[in-house]
Amino acid sequence: MQDVTTIPNWLAKRAFMTPDRVAIETGDEVVTFKELHEHALHVAQQISYYGITQGDTVAVLMSNSLSMVYVIHSLKYIGAKTVLLNTRLKAHEVAYQLKDSQTNLLICDDDLQRVGKESVSEKTLSMVTASELFKSQRKEIDVIEEFSLADADTIMYTSGTTGQPKGVIQTYGNHWWSAMGSALNLGIHEKDCWLIAVPLFHISGLSILMRSIFYGMKVMLHHQFNPKEVNEAIKEKEVTIVSVVTTMLTKMLDELAEQQYPTTFRCMLVGGGPAPLSVLKQCVVKQIPVYQTYGMTETASQVVTLAPEYSLSKLGSAGKALFPCDIRIINEQGDVLQANQSGEIIVKGPNVTAGYLNNEQKTRATIKDGWLHTGDIGYLDEQGFLYVLDRRSDLIISGGENIYPAEIENVLRSHPSVADAGVTGVSDDKWGQVPYGFVTLQSNVSKEEMMSYCESRLAKYKVPKKLFIVKELPRNASNKLLRRNLLSLVSEKSEN
Amino acid sequence: MQDVTTIPNWLAKRAFMTPDRVAIETGDEVVTFKELHEHALHVAQQISYYGITQGDTVAVLMSNSLSMVYVIHSLKYIGAKTVLLNTRLKAHEVAYQLKDSQTNLLICDDDLQRVGKESVSEKTLSMVTASELFKSQRKEIDVIEEFSLADADTIMYTSGTTGQPKGVIQTYGNHWWSAMGSALNLGIHEKDCWLIAVPLFHISGLSILMRSIFYGMKVMLHHQFNPKEVNEAIKEKEVTIVSVVTTMLTKMLDELAEQQYPTTFRCMLVGGGPAPLSVLKQCVVKQIPVYQTYGMTETASQVVTLAPEYSLSKLGSAGKALFPCDIRIINEQGDVLQANQSGEIIVKGPNVTAGYLNNEQKTRATIKDGWLHTGDIGYLDEQGFLYVLDRRSDLIISGGENIYPAEIENVLRSHPSVADAGVTGVSDDKWGQVPYGFVTLQSNVSKEEMMSYCESRLAKYKVPKKLFIVKELPRNASNKLLRRNLLSLVSEKSEN
Repeated sequence: MQDVTTIPNWLAKRAFMTPDRVAIETGDEVVTFKELHEHALHVAQQISYYGITQGDTVAVLMSNSLSMVYVIHSLKYIGAKTVLLNTRLKAHEVAYQLKDSQTNLLICDDDLQRVGKESVSEKTLSMVTASELFKSQRKEIDVIEEFSLADADTIMYTSGTTGQPKGVIQTYGNHWWSAMGSALNLGIHEKDCWLIAVPLFHISGLSILMRSIFYGMKVMLHHQFNPKEVNEAIKEKEVTIVSVVTTMLTKMLDELAEQQYPTTFRCMLVGGGPAPLSVLKQCVVKQIPVYQTYGMTETASQVVTLAPEYSLSKLGSAGKALFPCDIRIINEQGDVLQANQSGEIIVKGPNVTAGYLNNEQKTRATIKDGWLHTGDIGYLDEQGFLYVLDRRSDLIISGGENIYPAEIENVLRSHPSVADAGVTGVSDDKWGQVPYGFVTLQSNVSKEEMMSYCESRLAKYKVPKKLFIVKELPRNASNKLLRRNLLSLVSEKSEN
Repeated sequence: MQDVTTIPNWLAKRAFMTPDRVAIETGDEVVTFKELHEHALHVAQQISYYGITQGDTVAVLMSNSLSMVYVIHSLKYIGAKTVLLNTRLKAHEVAYQLKDSQTNLLICDDDLQRVGKESVSEKTLSMVTASELFKSQRKEIDVIEEFSLADADTIMYTSGTTGQPKGVIQTYGNHWWSAMGSALNLGIHEKDCWLIAVPLFHISGLSILMRSIFYGMKVMLHHQFNPKEVNEAIKEKEVTIVSVVTTMLTKMLDELAEQQYPTTFRCMLVGGGPAPLSVLKQCVVKQIPVYQTYGMTETASQVVTLAPEYSLSKLGSAGKALFPCDIRIINEQGDVLQANQSGEIIVKGPNVTAGYLNNEQKTRATIKDGWLHTGDIGYLDEQGFLYVLDRRSDLIISGGENIYPAEIENVLRSHPSVADAGVTGVSDDKWGQVPYGFVTLQSNVSKEEMMSYCESRLAKYKVPKKLFIVKELPRNASNKLLRRNLLSLVSEKSEN
């Protein structure tokens, strides 16, 4: 039996191995691994000046930028845990995550400081903007020279059936194994350049940053997604891999029009829910090497990806479990189902989260015997290819963001006029899905007032696109809300 | 904290992921991963018929062949540990390793059954030839579905300063991490084909077999090394990577003459001691992408390898420690030395052996705080590139085989006429190094008789090329044999 596995500080090691390779290109800026290491070390010393030491927790409320990358790496040099906050959250949503994670310091972008200030109420918690931080004095630190794979590295919040956000612990090992699983499927080429146009505060973006360090691979970092700019990067800037969600891919295909990508472009990794066959077929016609993938915050990115040789013959499948991972389909009694039988998807592997932060009960309910119960529905065909039929019934994926109906329902129910509430997802051409809200009332209130109530309490993407006032919500015998039946309550006429 | 890491059964998983990719080509035979899995399962059931179950130990005395590959994989399906025996060993050398490892079953090639039979004296130990085994009945087994990275997988014997061979435990994790470290340096290309012309019972050969499974990569397996056949495979059969030792490379260069390798050939991995500058320069002229590497049985193959961008500017260096590994140079007091100071090379990483089999004392003496003390001498330059000056002073590397002087000295001293003995290595154009023996006598004996005494007790490559009868052996004040001074005892005239 060996001790817990440790490996050298990732970025420091990479900078040592291949100092002059380009790590990141963003806009006009190009940063080598050596420079990235030096920046991270510098910023780590500045964060240390704010009193942060090994074992502390630091939250980051920033948008994709070099500054954000420096901060993410620097916290590992100190040995602090990193809470990655969604920049679209409202102040009270941020406040909840700061408190739940017992964050010691919040670092936020200058243009997010209003939200930051509003969310920092605890006396034990201080805040600094990125520009203040980068002008700060420095304090010497003992750089963490080795990472233990069992230690918590990053924390990302997801909501769930209760609507209460939970902090998913991503260990150093989770990130490492995720990247190895991906490499054993997609390979590692010296000329690879992976474009990030998804948020770094999501695992889809962060995992690319991790791979860059392990593989010694260049990253092209975009501040935000713009289909024209991504297409240009593929066509003219030697980008070889891009991670997208379906709505991004659709926009890129529209913008691409009659043009094609160069043959050196080798992977369009499509996550965030099953892509429609029509889109996949369009990609085949345009010879775009599209890899469907299935993964989640709890698996530190991909857990199932379609291998190159099956991209055509298994169109619509998410593929097979990556090398270190395993997958099963079970019924409600927990029995493992046979091929072609639909049930809950459960996954296992060293990339599966160590658990939910300070929430032993939820951890034990979700991860049993090493198997993560995703709540998603799917089946395996005879060859073991996964077909994801539906993300967990209560999950709405809108433009790549996960929306949990229960969280919106809690807000709706908190209004004094509302008796009960239900939320469900509806297909949308632009966003993939959008949330619709349904309420029963105990006193009069206008839809307009309800909507503005929601807007002040929820990130914009979570605000119901439409709201319906109904007489009764569909519940089963044990009073469980049947969200799938909500839409049948309304005809087109009664819409907002 | 996570539990011990487990991942799915490697070959079963690879066969599931990419069943139709070619796993191995050897001679006219081509085997896909699916077929390899089926063969391994079949053979596992045959081995099970011989009473072997999980936790048992099985020794393999075989030469490179598909049969040997089947046996190696099949033992993992059962969960048995595998002792890989050098086919050049004499029966009593084999017997020692079988006994020390508490082997339950010896599987040997048909043409090695004489040695096998002579070495199997214990009643608890049975033997079967490969052809018998493959004709045997089968017994159903519970296939091991997951490998724990902390578990012992293979055992390879090396001798040391005492001359007593020790079993190096290579865990599943050692093999995994070694392969990942290599991948993060050399990349993983879909069209890779790695040629094995080194023995599978050495870590240099076995580690390629492991990578093949992890990467889904084709292996070209040669029964033994033939420079013409290896060159043909590179030139005509799309081999992209070859592992060699210096003596092999020299022969390949001679055979290649004025020809060149195709540009798709991307890596000549040169291990087994520092390669002479003259050879490396020849490779530069011929545009052969030569990677020097440094590793040993105890590190499950490479631990230091020269990255592509430095193959020219750092000619003669073994490179930098691979991503998961770390390296230091220390003096005799254990202090870490600065750049350009020579001392003992110590290495750390998850590929470092869990220890020596049933030899806690030796394990503790060699691995301290996770650092493996190699006994080899070298230095790091200012940029951290390793230059290996000398393998441990008592180690002779002859044609890629490690020879430990103490082992030969023990045999010499066991002769009734010999009072004392010393052995040292001498440079040799053909083999790199060969052993020379020195004895003092207590009664008369001819050199011829001594040589034949050695030949009956030592694998051929260990028999001293020359033997000198001297009056006294050089020893220091504390009576330690000074092997480096042995050669000064003799002038050319007194040679055998």
